[in-house]
Amino acid sequence: MAQQHLEPTNPTARPVPADALAGYLQAQATEFLRALRLHRETGPGPNGAGAHTARNAGGGEPGVDAARALRRAARRLSGTLHTFQPLLNAEWAETMRPELAWLSGTLALEHSYASRLERLLQALHRLSGSSAFPAQSAGATMPVAVAAAHAPRPAGAASPPDRGSLTVGAAKAGALLDRQLTLARTRAHSTALQALGSARFHAVADKVALLASEVPLEAAAATADLRPLAAAAEGRLTDAVAALPLVTAGHPYNAEALVHGLAPDPAPHPQDAPWHQVRLLLRLHRYAREVLAGDGAPVDVRLLAAGQALNHHRDASEAAAAAAQAARTPRIAPATAYALGVLHADQRHEVEAARYAFQHSWQKEAVGTRP
Amino acid sequence: MAQQHLEPTNPTARPVPADALAGYLQAQATEFLRALRLHRETGPGPNGAGAHTARNAGGGEPGVDAARALRRAARRLSGTLHTFQPLLNAEWAETMRPELAWLSGTLALEHSYASRLERLLQALHRLSGSSAFPAQSAGATMPVAVAAAHAPRPAGAASPPDRGSLTVGAAKAGALLDRQLTLARTRAHSTALQALGSARFHAVADKVALLASEVPLEAAAATADLRPLAAAAEGRLTDAVAALPLVTAGHPYNAEALVHGLAPDPAPHPQDAPWHQVRLLLRLHRYAREVLAGDGAPVDVRLLAAGQALNHHRDASEAAAAAAQAARTPRIAPATAYALGVLHADQRHEVEAARYAFQHSWQKEAVGTRP
Repeated sequence: MAQQHLEPTNPTARPVPADALAGYLQAQATEFLRALRLHRETGPGPNGAGAHTARNAGGGEPGVDAARALRRAARRLSGTLHTFQPLLNAEWAETMRPELAWLSGTLALEHSYASRLERLLQALHRLSGSSAFPAQSAGATMPVAVAAAHAPRPAGAASPPDRGSLTVGAAKAGALLDRQLTLARTRAHSTALQALGSARFHAVADKVALLASEVPLEAAAATADLRPLAAAAEGRLTDAVAALPLVTAGHPYNAEALVHGLAPDPAPHPQDAPWHQVRLLLRLHRYAREVLAGDGAPVDVRLLAAGQALNHHRDASEAAAAAAQAARTPRIAPATAYALGVLHADQRHEVEAARYAFQHSWQKEAVGTRP
Repeated sequence: MAQQHLEPTNPTARPVPADALAGYLQAQATEFLRALRLHRETGPGPNGAGAHTARNAGGGEPGVDAARALRRAARRLSGTLHTFQPLLNAEWAETMRPELAWLSGTLALEHSYASRLERLLQALHRLSGSSAFPAQSAGATMPVAVAAAHAPRPAGAASPPDRGSLTVGAAKAGALLDRQLTLARTRAHSTALQALGSARFHAVADKVALLASEVPLEAAAATADLRPLAAAAEGRLTDAVAALPLVTAGHPYNAEALVHGLAPDPAPHPQDAPWHQVRLLLRLHRYAREVLAGDGAPVDVRLLAAGQALNHHRDASEAAAAAAQAARTPRIAPATAYALGVLHADQRHEVEAARYAFQHSWQKEAVGTRP
């Protein structure tokens, strides 16, 4: 099922030597070290021991930017080791990959709790027909909801002023989610701080520093062409996409995402898993394209749109689960539970909308690549 | 804005004399009397004094069929008097119309509570990922949920057996809705029975009997053409449709219907009103087409689909309101409230889906009528 998509992976249609792989890995390693230096200079971000400094400095939240750049480089290194592993020293790659995955996962957690809270609070305001939610959140480096909740607030503390337009239920639901997700975020922040100070992290950083100067290629790499491995990554993606229920997803309002919305099992929706998997495979495909194309990698708008749809899918899926989880808090008021139910269903419909959007951009691709 | 739609109203494109109006009114009056006779013979339906007989007789629920035929004829008489009022004796039409509207409204109430309950229970099962909801409900004359709840049950009575697959919250929500809507339905049934036994009803029935033999046309009707009045009805429809937010409705997952889903005002969504209005105008247009086309009225599939979408819109809108209303019941468990919140949002998304479907079939019309 690798289909006709193999061509676009390599726009030059000529063999790509392993030099391109080495160059890409070195560039990402350098970027990793740069972000790490920036991170150490600016402090660990808004929500922990170094928060005071970062906040007093004001401006563009360099700590957040640095953490994002660190995650970004770690993801690319890890993904590239995976796709091109046969050309790399096997033992080195096998020990390096899980460490990079651990690091990017640990660093991502804090950010994901913050953006989940922002998403849910915005949805609560939308569902209340309120336009009072601050507009400056769009495009801001840091979620406004999080900015308003830097320090974990005790239960029952005053709500942000813009919450006045909500019903009691929506306001209480917002306060509950704020407490729970801010707590989770604070914990994730501490975990990330601990990780960045750990011997495990220093070992990773040392290996990345070595990688920046020398890439441990296999002997076979000298004559290798990178394209077949990149094509295999694309093949895994297209196979996984082919297994998705795209026909259903292409029918608007198919009501599929909310099936099991009230099912007894409170676990994450099993129906979401294949979509999450495609999201990861799409990312690996994108990184492989970057490797092949070198510095002049053209941005593929189609892939970008499909990837964004899958990011929305993941975000909405997790936000829906957080609303359902919050509704299981003991002794909440019925009005709070009702608002959380509406919120959960709303986010599950965002899940469905994201699948529709993905299907849409993916079909465009199929049309676009035909001459 | 009456547009190019005037032609299709009259497929013959020739003047239509008032005879067609008289014939149509007489036919509907006869149908009304036939349904009334059937209704008296078979008893007043499943849910009241005569329920026992009707149930013991088994089969196709003739009481329900008769009530439906009665409503159907009353709606057509009332709508036709409205559209073609200038050709009819003004005083007669003006006293007759509100009485027919009262009658069809009173008779419709019981049915609407029954189908609302069925819709909500089906949604609860769908949201629970359960296929246990009895399949025989599809197309059955009488909602299964209602069949299972013939007599009003006391609070806390046993749930139907197929509810075992629901979570506690969904089951409790279903039981609460069952109690509330069955109670409302029982009251509506009593009201309908009282109405059918009232002097007011007998006066209407007498007038309909007179109408079956003679239609009080104005003198001007002798030379009149029915088409301009039918075209005016169509013009009111197309104007009202033009005022709908169809561009938004045509974008899947626009999330418009759930705005105000948590708004403080518990009243029916004001955004639904223009759609309800179009539903009524579409019906008047359909009846006017029936008048013009006489016995051989071709079924317009487009109009049928558009009308069905608007029926779904109305049903989902009212079901969503019923779920929100039930959530305001004092002392319900948080799990119940949560399930009702999910249910409310689900039905609001059905509202949005119905708007999308309407937009879809309406656009088809516009394309179809261009040569």
